[in-house]
Amino acid sequence: MTTSIDFITACINAIGSNYVLTSDTDKATYLIDQRQRVTGLAIAVVKPGNTEEVAAIIKLCNQYKVPVVPQGGNTGLVYGSVPDDSGNAIVLSLTRLNRIRTVDPVNQTMIVEAGCILQNAQEAAQAVNRLLPLSLAAEGSCTIGGNLATNAGGTAVLRYGNARELCLGLEVVTAQGEIVHGLRGLRKDNTGYDLRDLFIGAEGTLGVITAAVLKIFPQPKAQLTAMAALQTPDAALRLLTLAQNACGPTLTGFELMSDLCLQLVAKHMPHLAFPFEQHHPHYVLLELSDSESEAHASAMLEALLEQALEQDICQDAVLASSTAQSKMLWELRECISSAQAMEGKNIKHDVSLPISQIGEFISTTDALLQQHFPGCRNVTFGHLGDGNLHYNISPRVDQSSDDLLAQQDQINRVVHDSVTRFNGSISAEHGIGTLKREELLRYKSPIEIALMKSIKQALDPLNLMNPGKVI
Amino acid sequence: MTTSIDFITACINAIGSNYVLTSDTDKATYLIDQRQRVTGLAIAVVKPGNTEEVAAIIKLCNQYKVPVVPQGGNTGLVYGSVPDDSGNAIVLSLTRLNRIRTVDPVNQTMIVEAGCILQNAQEAAQAVNRLLPLSLAAEGSCTIGGNLATNAGGTAVLRYGNARELCLGLEVVTAQGEIVHGLRGLRKDNTGYDLRDLFIGAEGTLGVITAAVLKIFPQPKAQLTAMAALQTPDAALRLLTLAQNACGPTLTGFELMSDLCLQLVAKHMPHLAFPFEQHHPHYVLLELSDSESEAHASAMLEALLEQALEQDICQDAVLASSTAQSKMLWELRECISSAQAMEGKNIKHDVSLPISQIGEFISTTDALLQQHFPGCRNVTFGHLGDGNLHYNISPRVDQSSDDLLAQQDQINRVVHDSVTRFNGSISAEHGIGTLKREELLRYKSPIEIALMKSIKQALDPLNLMNPGKVI
Repeated sequence: MTTSIDFITACINAIGSNYVLTSDTDKATYLIDQRQRVTGLAIAVVKPGNTEEVAAIIKLCNQYKVPVVPQGGNTGLVYGSVPDDSGNAIVLSLTRLNRIRTVDPVNQTMIVEAGCILQNAQEAAQAVNRLLPLSLAAEGSCTIGGNLATNAGGTAVLRYGNARELCLGLEVVTAQGEIVHGLRGLRKDNTGYDLRDLFIGAEGTLGVITAAVLKIFPQPKAQLTAMAALQTPDAALRLLTLAQNACGPTLTGFELMSDLCLQLVAKHMPHLAFPFEQHHPHYVLLELSDSESEAHASAMLEALLEQALEQDICQDAVLASSTAQSKMLWELRECISSAQAMEGKNIKHDVSLPISQIGEFISTTDALLQQHFPGCRNVTFGHLGDGNLHYNISPRVDQSSDDLLAQQDQINRVVHDSVTRFNGSISAEHGIGTLKREELLRYKSPIEIALMKSIKQALDPLNLMNPGKVI
Repeated sequence: MTTSIDFITACINAIGSNYVLTSDTDKATYLIDQRQRVTGLAIAVVKPGNTEEVAAIIKLCNQYKVPVVPQGGNTGLVYGSVPDDSGNAIVLSLTRLNRIRTVDPVNQTMIVEAGCILQNAQEAAQAVNRLLPLSLAAEGSCTIGGNLATNAGGTAVLRYGNARELCLGLEVVTAQGEIVHGLRGLRKDNTGYDLRDLFIGAEGTLGVITAAVLKIFPQPKAQLTAMAALQTPDAALRLLTLAQNACGPTLTGFELMSDLCLQLVAKHMPHLAFPFEQHHPHYVLLELSDSESEAHASAMLEALLEQALEQDICQDAVLASSTAQSKMLWELRECISSAQAMEGKNIKHDVSLPISQIGEFISTTDALLQQHFPGCRNVTFGHLGDGNLHYNISPRVDQSSDDLLAQQDQINRVVHDSVTRFNGSISAEHGIGTLKREELLRYKSPIEIALMKSIKQALDPLNLMNPGKVI
C-alpha cells in the first residue's frame, strides 16, 4: 500500500494531479468495456499529455512494478483495454494525445497521435482533398492508437487493407519507457527488422503506440452501390471474380448477406425499404469508388450486372441512381447486427476463410450446427471480398436466448473447429484480448505460441504491458 | 575437424550425398556474390529437397553449432547470401524447393516454395489470367524466398507495394529447426503477434522461409506509358499529384530521371531513340495499368498530359501509341544503370525519402557534393512515386573512376547524412547484408538497434542464422 501511494505521488509529480484519477467515480468509465460485460479494477487512471509523459509514467511503472493497461476509445470487442480485477494495474489513457501533427498531401501521409479519434483524422484528410480509408462502426469514438494496436479492419479493407497496411511508421514507448522515434513516412525502407508490424496488432502487450504515420489517398470522384440477388454463396463468389476482372481496384465493397438477415431487418426496421420484388436466398452489396466520374462508375456497374444476369449468376439486381439510394442500400447491410440484437441475444463469430472456401464452409458448418442444435438460425453476413464472415447464431424460434447462450461453448467449438479445418482464422478483425485468449491457445500451433511468448519475454520481461491479454 | 566430419555425415544421412556439396569446385558458385566482389568459405553447400529436410538440417546445425547462410538465387546486392571467410558455416541452398504448390484464382493467392524463380511464379499466375505484380531486374534468376527475406521492391511498388505487402502467410523453419505452418491465405487474421512480417525482411537472420502465400490480382486490360519533359524535380512532384488525383490506382509507374541519365544512354546506347526534339533538365516516365481498355487508358493519359502542359508543369510530352513504343520508353529508363556502368565505375546509393521532400533533398545534396567534390556528376533517377532514388555519383569528366572510389566513404557520409536529415532511409529496397551493416549501426537509433538485438537473441539465441548479417 505504501508502494502504491509512493507510485501515485510519483505519477502526480510527473504529469500533474488533474491527470491521475484515483476516485472510484472518476475511474468508473475507464474500468468497464463498452458492451458493459466486463468490469475491472485499477490503482489509478493515468492520463499523460504527450509522449514524454507516457515514457515517464512507464518508467515509474517499471520502478514500482505496476502493470499498465493502455486504453484509447475503449471501444474494443474483446476486453483488451479493460484491466483485470486484481486492482494492481493502472489504466493508461491516451486520449489527451489527440493532435494531428502534420498532413502532407504530396507525400500522401498524415502524422496522428494515438488518442486522436478516427473521425477527426478522416476529416483532417478530407480538408486537403484526401481520403483516410480506415472506416468502421465505432469511428466517432475509437482512436488511432487502438485501431493500430488491434489492427482494425472495417469496410474499406478490400481496396485499402487493414489498419496495418495504412501505417508507414510508429512512435512507440517501449515496456522500459524508452521512446522509439519511428515516424518515417517512407514507402520503402529495408533497414532491419520490421518493428512497426510487431507493435501493430499486439494489443498493447509489447509497448504503447503514441503516434503513427498514416497513408492517405486521392478522394474518389464518385461512389456507387448496387445490390444483386442470388441463389448461393458460390454464386456470390462467381460474381466477385467477375467484378474483380471487370472493375479492378475500382471495386471497394463486396458484402454478402443471407435472406434471413434482411428478413430480420424488415421485421425490426420496417421503415427500411426492401429493394426487390421478391425474396431470394442471398444478396450481395457491391460498391465502386471511381477516380473519374459518377457516369463512368454507373456505366461500369451496369455492364457488370447485365453480364451477371445474362450468365445467370444473379437473378435480380438494383443499381443505386443517387448517393441517397446508395446510402439506403448500405443501411440495410449495416442494420443487420442491430436487427439481430432486437430479435434477442445471439452468439457472434468474427471469422475469416480463404475466399474460395466460403461456400463450402457455410454449407458444411450450417449442416453441423443443424445436426447438433436443430432449428438454430444462422444469421450469416460479412465482408465476402475480404473472406470475413460474421457467422452469427440466433436461437430457434421456440427457444429462449438464455437457452441458446447456455450452449455457447459447444457452438463455438463446432464453428471454430470448422474454421480451423478450412484453414481460417477465429478472429478476423476483433483481436484476442481476454475474450478469445483460451481459444487462441487451443487453435494456434504450439510453435507459434512459443515464438509469441519468446517475443513477449524479450520485449517485456517484467510482463507489465497489458498482462493477461493475447498471450 | 572430427565434429565437422560427423556433421557432414549426419547431413548426408539426412538428405543424401548428392545434395551435400563439399568439393571446392562444387561449392564455388555459391560462395561468391553476383557482382563478384565478395567471396566466402563454407564447410558445405547443403541442398535439402523439402521443408522437412530443411528442418532436419537446421536441427543438425543446432546439434553441431554450425552457422547457416540461407541462399536463394544469390542475386542480392548487399552480400546477404554469401558466407564470411571463417569457413565455419554451411550455405543452405533452397533452390530445390522450387514448386508452385497451388494457384487459387478465386482467393487470388498462390502458394510458392522459397526456391521458385520469380519469373516462374509470374508465369503460373498468368496461366490463370492473374498478375503476380512483383517484378524486378533479376526476376529470371532471383527466388521467392530471397525476395521475401529481403522485402524486395521493384517496378510495381507504387500500386501493389513491396514484397511484404504481397505476402499473406509463410511457412518457416525456425532457428531451432521447428516448422511454422503459417501458409494461411487470409486477408484478415488478428490472432496474435505478426510473426510473418518479422521473418520478411530479416535476411535469413531469424529463420528460413520455405514457402509463402502470395497475393495475385486481375490482369490489367492495357498498359500504356508516356514521358514528360520538365524543369525540376518539384515540377515532377506536381505532376505526380495531378496524376494521382486524375488516375487513382490506375497510375502504376512514375519514374524520374535527370537529363544526364538520358545523355549517358544516348552516348552508350545510340540505337535507343531519344523521344524529344530538344533536351530538358528532367523527365518523368508515367505508366497506367487500366482494367478497361487501351482506348480508355489512352484517353486518360492524354487528358492528364494536356492539363500538365496547360499548367506549365511540363514543357513537352510523348505518349506511346503502342505496346512497342511503351517498351521503348521503359528501355530508356532501364538502361540508365548499364549506361552509367559503361561510362565507368561509380558510387551507388539506394535511398528513400518522404516524396514531398525529394526536390529539396536533391538540390541540397547536389550542392553539398559540389562543395566537397567539385565537378562530380550526379546520375539521379528512380521510382519517384515510391520516394526511392538511385542517387548515383560518377566521377568528374577529368577524373578516374578509381580516384572517385577512393572517396567513397566520404561521399557516402555526405549522402547518408543528408538522407537522415530529411528523415529518409539509407536502404530503400536492397537491404543491409554485410555491405550496409556499419551504416545501419551509425544511422539507426540505439533503442531500435537494442530492440532488434533482443528479438534476434530471443529467436536465435545460438546466433546460428546468417550471423554477421543485418545486426
